[in-house]
Amino acid sequence: MFENKENRTELSELGEFGLIDHLAKHIGLSHPSTLKGIGDDAAVIDQGNGQVTLVTTDMLTEGVHFDLGYVPLKHLGYKAISVNLSDICAMNGRPAQVVVGLGLSNRFSLEAVEELYAGMKLACERYNVDLVGGDTTTSRAGLVLSITAIGTAAKNKVAYRSGAQENDIIILSGDLGGAYMGLQLLEREKEVFKANPSAQPDLEGFDYILERQLKPEPRLDIVELLDSLGIIPTSMIDVSDGLASEILHICKQSGYGADLYIEKIPLDPMTISTADAFNLEPVTCGMSGGEDYELLFTIKASDFEKLQNNPLITPIGHITGKGERARLITPQKEAIEITAQGWKHF
Amino acid sequence: MFENKENRTELSELGEFGLIDHLAKHIGLSHPSTLKGIGDDAAVIDQGNGQVTLVTTDMLTEGVHFDLGYVPLKHLGYKAISVNLSDICAMNGRPAQVVVGLGLSNRFSLEAVEELYAGMKLACERYNVDLVGGDTTTSRAGLVLSITAIGTAAKNKVAYRSGAQENDIIILSGDLGGAYMGLQLLEREKEVFKANPSAQPDLEGFDYILERQLKPEPRLDIVELLDSLGIIPTSMIDVSDGLASEILHICKQSGYGADLYIEKIPLDPMTISTADAFNLEPVTCGMSGGEDYELLFTIKASDFEKLQNNPLITPIGHITGKGERARLITPQKEAIEITAQGWKHF
Repeated sequence: MFENKENRTELSELGEFGLIDHLAKHIGLSHPSTLKGIGDDAAVIDQGNGQVTLVTTDMLTEGVHFDLGYVPLKHLGYKAISVNLSDICAMNGRPAQVVVGLGLSNRFSLEAVEELYAGMKLACERYNVDLVGGDTTTSRAGLVLSITAIGTAAKNKVAYRSGAQENDIIILSGDLGGAYMGLQLLEREKEVFKANPSAQPDLEGFDYILERQLKPEPRLDIVELLDSLGIIPTSMIDVSDGLASEILHICKQSGYGADLYIEKIPLDPMTISTADAFNLEPVTCGMSGGEDYELLFTIKASDFEKLQNNPLITPIGHITGKGERARLITPQKEAIEITAQGWKHF
Repeated sequence: MFENKENRTELSELGEFGLIDHLAKHIGLSHPSTLKGIGDDAAVIDQGNGQVTLVTTDMLTEGVHFDLGYVPLKHLGYKAISVNLSDICAMNGRPAQVVVGLGLSNRFSLEAVEELYAGMKLACERYNVDLVGGDTTTSRAGLVLSITAIGTAAKNKVAYRSGAQENDIIILSGDLGGAYMGLQLLEREKEVFKANPSAQPDLEGFDYILERQLKPEPRLDIVELLDSLGIIPTSMIDVSDGLASEILHICKQSGYGADLYIEKIPLDPMTISTADAFNLEPVTCGMSGGEDYELLFTIKASDFEKLQNNPLITPIGHITGKGERARLITPQKEAIEITAQGWKHF
């Protein structure tokens, strides 16, 4: 009745990041307690007592973010919580509560919803987080999950994407590319299953990369490690869209360049062998695969000694000059400019 | 591949409240900062400095919670924010931030999304709330909106549903039933429009009830009024599902009964005349209509003097004895037991 049909710009022309940038331009901040709005892993709200509240939200929709053809509901619940806790950790914060919005079509039974909640509960228990609220409603189209995580940090320890400085060391927790290879494996088995529904999925021996895809863990241990060593990262982000995309966020928001060394990028042997079997370049899987939920952060060179030889982390490069670009340095010392692969659903 | 098809309980057997109760039973709270989880208008998190953080979330799905056939996107955006701010007010708190999850199908253009955001922005500005984050993603089926609102309150001023005591006065802000009558009007005009697409909607002169439906306002003014008068409500809830449903929540959680007086229930003249035109009982529209987003609260009898004759509020009854029922008292002093109408989408 009231629809305006005159102008029409397709969302696909902007892409996800473009749309968010476009909308964020028109959003002002005026509440005195808001320290950071859109544009980081979580919003930062001042409590006025030296502490901040961190808030992050994610919406996951069936057929876009997950395929119930091969993602068990319990794993989906676990992952949905994990990835939000990861965003709190990426501010150098500690998650404490989550609220859950759930849209369900009548395809779902109570038992299915219980499975989903069992997974969410497991993740909450593991990270000492309380599920404190939610909204459960009908959806016309499959499952929609909306998770908001709440956490806290000391105000002077919050790590923004924008704080990296020249000569800071770039550090990565864990290894990359595993979640992406796990996804390739599941997609392949789904095709086999579609062709022959009596076939059993051949997933044995691939536990590590399957877990990386189906059951990622937020790196709260890294936040605690840094705290115990007295290190405040100068910048931090979690690797949800691939290392390439994340280092570009840090460079863009900090205003500096970065050099990453290809041979330093940590890859698990199973990621490498599976990538080989799929005729994929392992480093590319790490750079662009995404969903690893590792922490990418920068520290002052003077803090590096405290972290050296720690098996949980790998130094992969350093921040370069003001206005420089992000580059990948090959073992032959060639420099390749890193461009956004991003993650475009539209 | 992994689906368990053995047991199946339909969600429709439980209804929305039944499902939430069922799931909440298995959710424990363990984080020391969690003061209240599921079961009130918002979760309550201790900041440790005499202040609490309040968190509430709502998911709105197209075709279930709104019909874009007659709800302009700008109004939808405004209302989505309003109703969440209302939940913060219903804890006797002040909203400060929101985060927005948005699922969009490719049916929506950039211009449509801008309209939606314009409405959200308007509500945020009006109530001095910042939109601090969000997630925008693809949805397979229409529009999904998930809003989480964050607010604060002094720890000793939070009003829970569970605090009503015998002889407390039951107070309601504003008037009831208008939003429901606005909806009836819009539904009727939609049917006319379907039958004759060249017909112009006949909505003139119905501004009040249309605004009640399309553009509800959170009663932050009531929270501020009570604060300025030095009144801490003993219990509070917002009227989203109708007065019947809300007074039952207060009675159940407080453990007391309530007597409400039919002739005291505030109805706008336009609500009454429109109800008459639709052959509906005006009081029933107020009791069960819902979406008025007024505040229903109880105060100690000794505080009543401070509020007496205030045009923003109406005393509509009082809390009765422990374990008593909620009753509606007719002008002839007959008592009708109030039963849940609730709001069942499943």
